[in-house]
Amino acid sequence: MAREFELIARHFAPLTGVAGLGLRDDAAVFAPPAGRDLVVTSDAIVETVHFRAEDPPDLVARKLLRVNLSDLAAMGAEPLGYTLTVSVPKSTPEAWFEAFARGLAQDQAEFGVALMGGDTTSTPGPISLTATLFGHVAPGAALRRGGARVGDLLCVTGTIGDGALGLLALRGEVPDADGYLAGRYLLPRPRLGLRLGGLATAGMDISDGLLQDAGHMAAAAGLAVEIRAPDVPLSAAAAALGPAYGPIRLGGGDDYELLLAVAPADAPALAACCAAAGVTLTIIGQFLPGPAHVRLLDGHGEMVPVLAAGFSHF
Amino acid sequence: MAREFELIARHFAPLTGVAGLGLRDDAAVFAPPAGRDLVVTSDAIVETVHFRAEDPPDLVARKLLRVNLSDLAAMGAEPLGYTLTVSVPKSTPEAWFEAFARGLAQDQAEFGVALMGGDTTSTPGPISLTATLFGHVAPGAALRRGGARVGDLLCVTGTIGDGALGLLALRGEVPDADGYLAGRYLLPRPRLGLRLGGLATAGMDISDGLLQDAGHMAAAAGLAVEIRAPDVPLSAAAAALGPAYGPIRLGGGDDYELLLAVAPADAPALAACCAAAGVTLTIIGQFLPGPAHVRLLDGHGEMVPVLAAGFSHF
Repeated sequence: MAREFELIARHFAPLTGVAGLGLRDDAAVFAPPAGRDLVVTSDAIVETVHFRAEDPPDLVARKLLRVNLSDLAAMGAEPLGYTLTVSVPKSTPEAWFEAFARGLAQDQAEFGVALMGGDTTSTPGPISLTATLFGHVAPGAALRRGGARVGDLLCVTGTIGDGALGLLALRGEVPDADGYLAGRYLLPRPRLGLRLGGLATAGMDISDGLLQDAGHMAAAAGLAVEIRAPDVPLSAAAAALGPAYGPIRLGGGDDYELLLAVAPADAPALAACCAAAGVTLTIIGQFLPGPAHVRLLDGHGEMVPVLAAGFSHF
Repeated sequence: MAREFELIARHFAPLTGVAGLGLRDDAAVFAPPAGRDLVVTSDAIVETVHFRAEDPPDLVARKLLRVNLSDLAAMGAEPLGYTLTVSVPKSTPEAWFEAFARGLAQDQAEFGVALMGGDTTSTPGPISLTATLFGHVAPGAALRRGGARVGDLLCVTGTIGDGALGLLALRGEVPDADGYLAGRYLLPRPRLGLRLGGLATAGMDISDGLLQDAGHMAAAAGLAVEIRAPDVPLSAAAAALGPAYGPIRLGGGDDYELLLAVAPADAPALAACCAAAGVTLTIIGQFLPGPAHVRLLDGHGEMVPVLAAGFSHF
């Protein structure tokens, strides 16, 4: 058997459920849950752009799944399964495939998904990986970006800025004695299972920086949004770096926390839903009448000039 | 707005249907067709591996969709839609995006699919593209690879070897005065809409070479398969190159024709179904009791040694 098919049979086929047909067919076949809407997202990650060549392959696999699972979380969806395309150099050792598949298996167990199909190819360039994740929601219940109304509060889960600082820590540019920040960069935590539907009026995940993503949510609603910088929740490690790192914390990417809008009356119930899942929800601002833009305020209520627009690939 | 989001809004958002939510949300949402099984396939194509740097971007886009649509065709599925990840160098000119999106639009119209979502990233390496295609079939009606029975006939649609020869033609290694072979390499023709269900007992698409893919089908059924080399249908352009190119025709990849198994009694009806869609079906061999292997016979019924195993990325 050609090595391509041996690698697939040995490392990827054991990750499939019934839909994947053992990766021996041309496509996966599954019966979608009756009466549910399907939610689908595809994200690509590229070596040197989204992860470092020296990152452990099992963590790369888990990050690939998690950035996509975070999109399902932002839609309020329950995950079902995924397909995967893997483009790696011909010289990639079998140990890479073994570790990569081990990472997939670990997160499959943690998040209740199974591999359904995909493709393994060679590339003369950096490792390029794409996952397409499938989830489901009750009809009409998917949480959209543009649903915020004037007066709704802007909230975030967890803490902001750790991912961008974690990349700096891995490069040796900021201290990170216990590796907390590096861990947040290498292994984001998709905020699944929060039961946001019916409480949050809008939601998205923060992947390109809080300020830019809040701008997307404001634009989708045609509203302004005010963010009080001192209220943005920081981890102890991120806070310890001091005010000079404020722009990186609020503008850097790789948070994979949820940005949510909620009517003031529903905020306590939404916070309780998050708390039930062990997740802290913090109110950081409010939606105001348009035109769409982001206003960042300091502790005195003064406007802070926003320099960085957030991450853009081009 | 950051250039990444401008490019998406300008070139990709117009390709979406209702499920894609204008590419402004974290994921696509759609109601799957009631009472149908979903069929899902993901294939990646990489510059210099699956297409040439000088290939026109609109043809690259169409090839990306078509190699995936060919997998849906092999399962007997009707296409619904797709997601897309595009990783290109930062220096990629806007004209590339414009031409790539124009190719997508052309094949969306031809095959009745719409863009549902995806991701656009930069890469320091070759262009890497992944599409995930969604289709649907009647429950239990997906055509599998392993269904062939002893005595079933092995058939192929269209002609074999044109794609591999087309790549040689584009490299100037074989004559191709009217560009027929090059066209077959650049723009495969997925064999959708043939109504194979209930007649074919097994099916797959030929992407890695007739002999290797027939071997996969034999292995999945646990049977031997005999192929009569003189019966393999060739285009006039492929036949004109003479017997020296036999191994490339039967062993090379990129055919994207269907390989089908059918009981002898059902073969005329299957051929009629194909003919109704303008597709020629040719009987080229037969399944025999195992062990699983491929026997290639010449015009005198003598075994032909098979040298090339077919395409493998590793």
